[in-house]
Amino acid sequence: MFRMFRGGHSGGWRVTSISPVVGEPLPFVPALSVTDSEAISLPLVPSRNAWRLVGVASTPRYTERAEKQQLTAVQAELGRLGATSAALIPIRKSEAWWELTQEERRKIFEDKSHHIASTLRFLPAIARQLYHSRDLGGPFDFLTWFEFAPPDASLFEELVAMLRQTEEWSYVEHEIDVRLVKEVLSA
Amino acid sequence: MFRMFRGGHSGGWRVTSISPVVGEPLPFVPALSVTDSEAISLPLVPSRNAWRLVGVASTPRYTERAEKQQLTAVQAELGRLGATSAALIPIRKSEAWWELTQEERRKIFEDKSHHIASTLRFLPAIARQLYHSRDLGGPFDFLTWFEFAPPDASLFEELVAMLRQTEEWSYVEHEIDVRLVKEVLSA
Repeated sequence: MFRMFRGGHSGGWRVTSISPVVGEPLPFVPALSVTDSEAISLPLVPSRNAWRLVGVASTPRYTERAEKQQLTAVQAELGRLGATSAALIPIRKSEAWWELTQEERRKIFEDKSHHIASTLRFLPAIARQLYHSRDLGGPFDFLTWFEFAPPDASLFEELVAMLRQTEEWSYVEHEIDVRLVKEVLSA
Repeated sequence: MFRMFRGGHSGGWRVTSISPVVGEPLPFVPALSVTDSEAISLPLVPSRNAWRLVGVASTPRYTERAEKQQLTAVQAELGRLGATSAALIPIRKSEAWWELTQEERRKIFEDKSHHIASTLRFLPAIARQLYHSRDLGGPFDFLTWFEFAPPDASLFEELVAMLRQTEEWSYVEHEIDVRLVKEVLSA
């Protein structure tokens, strides 16, 4: 099952901003739909007023046993009622990153960048899910998705600012920051 | 880009046998076509007289730097003229395997099962490529593909017999062994 993010004119999330952090921008669209899909057709090239990104929630690549237990104990599921703010941050890392071996990437990811250890304090306020998309083609390696309640917005800013200063992030060569608000159906 | 293996009535490879090693068999088909595809539609359920399996050549998950250098120095590319024998061995590993962390899997894969070290001596005679399919849905986690010249057939038997005795292989809960001969176009 693939997770499909479609930027366009309708969807359950209203887009409040689309900011290119590094590299080419994505066209602004007013809405985002998030669905599960059983098919992919490449190429995933954005058109002038719509785009779609596809990923898959895969096996964690770097988490060790003790970290897995810590994360499981503290993390929140997606879809919480009050979590009406969201962010979709698609990322592509450089060829230099992918030329590294698994253990070399793990060293940068955790031993030097403390990706897991230093993000634990943002849980469970920020719920997040990583979708892998490198192997599915398309312009990004990962689609990162975050949900939080509006009062936790500044906490979320702190989280992304912290990650962007790590050594791991020096390998990011394309990053877009899409901010969203859940559409409320009125009676 | 996805690698698509279609079992059916035509294709560049003639099927000589399809053996279920562990778990459900795949229907016998006389031919296999191997192509690159830009689309996937799930579900990948085999019909009575045809099936298709899709995978992607991804980043190696366990290879460390020194191993990568050894492998690069000695391995052969697919598509060698004399390599007219092939095997497609789709594999699914158990949930117990996927519940392990990356470092726990690496320990079983190399420290205990010597997957890389003990297969080095079969290179370059046996050319091989691993295609990942777990994240693409379908019945298998991996599609393993091997090409060799007919005189190396017994060497290949030795390789698969050796792998099937490792601790790593105790996690394999579905395995099919498809043997193939390249179709020669006659003038």
